[in-house]
Amino acid sequence: MKKIALLGATGSIGLQTLDVIRLHPEEFELHSMAFGRNVEKALPLIREFKPKKIVVQDEQTKVTLEKEIDQPILTGTGGLIEVSVDDAVDVVVNAVMGSVGLPATLKAIQAKKTIAIANKETLVTAGHLVMSEAKKHGVELLPVDSEHSAIYQSLNGESKKDIHKLIITASGGSFRDKKREDLVGVTVEDALNHPNWSMGAKITIDSASMMNKGLEVIEAHWLFDVPYDQIHVILHRESVIHSMVEFVDRSVMAQLGTPDMKVPIQYALTYPERLDLPMTKQLELEEIATLHFEKMDMVRFPCLRMAYEAGRAGGSMTTVLNAANEEAVQLFLEGKIPFLDIERKIEKALEGHDRIHNPDLSTILSIDEETRKQVRFHLN
Amino acid sequence: MKKIALLGATGSIGLQTLDVIRLHPEEFELHSMAFGRNVEKALPLIREFKPKKIVVQDEQTKVTLEKEIDQPILTGTGGLIEVSVDDAVDVVVNAVMGSVGLPATLKAIQAKKTIAIANKETLVTAGHLVMSEAKKHGVELLPVDSEHSAIYQSLNGESKKDIHKLIITASGGSFRDKKREDLVGVTVEDALNHPNWSMGAKITIDSASMMNKGLEVIEAHWLFDVPYDQIHVILHRESVIHSMVEFVDRSVMAQLGTPDMKVPIQYALTYPERLDLPMTKQLELEEIATLHFEKMDMVRFPCLRMAYEAGRAGGSMTTVLNAANEEAVQLFLEGKIPFLDIERKIEKALEGHDRIHNPDLSTILSIDEETRKQVRFHLN
Repeated sequence: MKKIALLGATGSIGLQTLDVIRLHPEEFELHSMAFGRNVEKALPLIREFKPKKIVVQDEQTKVTLEKEIDQPILTGTGGLIEVSVDDAVDVVVNAVMGSVGLPATLKAIQAKKTIAIANKETLVTAGHLVMSEAKKHGVELLPVDSEHSAIYQSLNGESKKDIHKLIITASGGSFRDKKREDLVGVTVEDALNHPNWSMGAKITIDSASMMNKGLEVIEAHWLFDVPYDQIHVILHRESVIHSMVEFVDRSVMAQLGTPDMKVPIQYALTYPERLDLPMTKQLELEEIATLHFEKMDMVRFPCLRMAYEAGRAGGSMTTVLNAANEEAVQLFLEGKIPFLDIERKIEKALEGHDRIHNPDLSTILSIDEETRKQVRFHLN
Repeated sequence: MKKIALLGATGSIGLQTLDVIRLHPEEFELHSMAFGRNVEKALPLIREFKPKKIVVQDEQTKVTLEKEIDQPILTGTGGLIEVSVDDAVDVVVNAVMGSVGLPATLKAIQAKKTIAIANKETLVTAGHLVMSEAKKHGVELLPVDSEHSAIYQSLNGESKKDIHKLIITASGGSFRDKKREDLVGVTVEDALNHPNWSMGAKITIDSASMMNKGLEVIEAHWLFDVPYDQIHVILHRESVIHSMVEFVDRSVMAQLGTPDMKVPIQYALTYPERLDLPMTKQLELEEIATLHFEKMDMVRFPCLRMAYEAGRAGGSMTTVLNAANEEAVQLFLEGKIPFLDIERKIEKALEGHDRIHNPDLSTILSIDEETRKQVRFHLN
C-alpha cells in the first residue's frame, strides 16, 4: 500500500490522481491533500478520501473550511512542506500550479520521498537545485507530464549514456492552424479550446503559445540530463506518439496512447510495475489511420525559441522565463492583455534581466517575485 | 569480446551481421561461419574474417572450397551443430534459411549459448521444443527480425504479465496495392520488388503473400509466450513503426527506425547494451511526414489467416504450414507454379494433415520432409 500526499488535489491532474487511487484501493491510499481555495470542489473529496492532513492556500480558506470539517487544517508553503515530509507518506504527487510547489519538493527530496512531478515549473525555475538534491539523496523524480512519462518509459531498461536525442512531440495547441497575423484578435475562449487534451487553463494557454513545449524542453533537460542540442521538438497533431528517444544505434523508442492523463499518472505511482486501467480507451491505430509530423517553426512560435534560449543561457534565466510567463498568462486570462502580449512580456522580462549563475533558493524566489511584479505592473 | 558462430553467413542477414562485426572489432569476433553453397561469395569473407571453423552444406561444396583454402571444412547438420556448441563460442547467430537450422539451435541451447535468432522457421516448425529447452537451460533467445526485435525492445524493463497485446506491423509487401484478381499473372520479378526492405528472395515472396507476417505471429507467440488472440497485425505501409506492445494500463511502447537490419542484428549482439551505428540513417519523421495504418484484411491475405489457424490448432500444424510454404515458394521461384498456387498448396497440405500433439524432433523432421515431397511432387 503506497501512501500518497497529493499537492494540488482540485486541479486537473489532482482529480485524475484521485481517479487512479479510486481504481486501486488495494494499492494506494490518499494520506494527505493540499489544494488552493476551491473549498466547494475539495469538500466532497475530503469526505470521500478522509485524508489525515489537509493543506489550503491561505487563512481565509482555512476559516471557510473549518466550518465544514472537524480536523486541523494547515496552510501555505509550511503546510505543503509538513505533508511532504510526513513519515507516513511514501509518494508526494506535486500537481500544484506554478512555482509554489518548489520549496515542498525540495524538502520532500531531502526526506527521501518518491516524487511524482506534474508541476513542470518546479524544474524550469530551479532545475539545478532540484536535481542536485535528488542526486544527493538518491531520490527518483517520476514525471507525470505525458511527454516526460513517454520518455521515461522509453528509457526503461536503457542506459542514459546510449541516448542520442530526445524527441518531444507537440500537438500545436489551439492555434496551430493560425498564422501569426491571425493571432491578433484571439480570445481567451479560443485559446482554451485545445484540440486533443482537456487540461487546466494555464497549461492550455501555454499550449496555444507553445510555451508549454518550451517548459517541457527545459524540464526534459533537467530530468534526463540531456543537453538542449539533443532535445528536439516536432509537431504531431494527433498527439498519439507522446514522445520518443533516439539511441546511439538509431533505434527510436516511443510511447503511444489515447489522450488520457490517468496513464502517466498511474505509471508514476506504480513504476516500475504497471496496473490495469480498464476504462481507458485502447489505442486503435487502424481507426486513427494517419499520423502527421511536421518540422517545428521557431518563428511562428517565439515562446519555444525563447525557452531554448533561456535554457541554454541557464542560471536565473529560466526562472525569469517561467515567472514572466505565469504572470502574463494570468493577465491574458483576466482579459487585461491580448494573446500576443504574452510573448512580448516574456521577451521584455528576459531582455531586462541580468543573469545570475547558479542561484540559490532565496535568490530564485526573489527573482520570481520581482519578475511577476514587473510583468503585472508595467502594463506597457 | 563476444565470439560469434554465424550460421548462414552469405545470406542477407549473414552479410549484415558481418557488417556489424566489422564496425566493432573491439567488441565482436567471428569465430566460425556456416554457409550453403555460395563459395564465390564466401571466399573473400573467409579471407577477411579468418574463422576458426567453416561449415558448408554438402560434400561437393566442401571439395570446391578445399581447393581454395587450407583448413578443415565441416558439412551439413553435423557441422552446424559442431560450431554451435563449440566452447569458444558465446553467441550463435542462426540466420540460415528454412528449418535446416533447427537441430543446431536445439544443441546450442543445451550448450547454454546465447542465441540470436533470425531464422523464424525454427520457431514456427518447433516452437514448443525450442522454448521448453530454452526455459530448461535458462537461455535467452534474442530475436533479429525487425518486428520481434521491436517487441523485445518494447518489453525492455517490463514484466511479461503486464502485456495486453502485441501489435505487429506489416508493410503489405510487393502486392499490397493489388486486388486478389490482379495476382493471377504476377511474375517472380514483380514479387521480389519489395517497397521498403531489401531482403532475401524467400522472405520477399513471403512478404508478398503475407505468409511472412503469419510466420512472425507464430514466432511471436513462442518467443513472448502470448496467446494468438493477443497478437494483432496491422498494415503500416511505411514500416517506420517496427512493432508495438500494448500493456494493461493501455500504454503502448513501440520501436521505430529507418529500414536497416543492422539495427536489430546489432541489438541482439549487444543486448542489454547498445552501441553506435553511425552510418545508419536517422529517422526523420518530419521528412516522412505521414504514417498510415490500416486494418489487416484476412480475406485478401489468406496466408495470414492460415497461419493464425495453424498456430491456434498447434501441434504439428505449424510444421506443415512452414514446410508447405517453403516448398511452394521455391516452386514459384523456379517458375513451376503461379503465385496464387502458393496459398492453394499450403491450404491443401494443412487440410490433408492429421495433427499430432506435441511432436518430438524426429516426428517434426519427418513431417517436414513428407510435406515438402507432397507439395513438390503433386503438382496439381
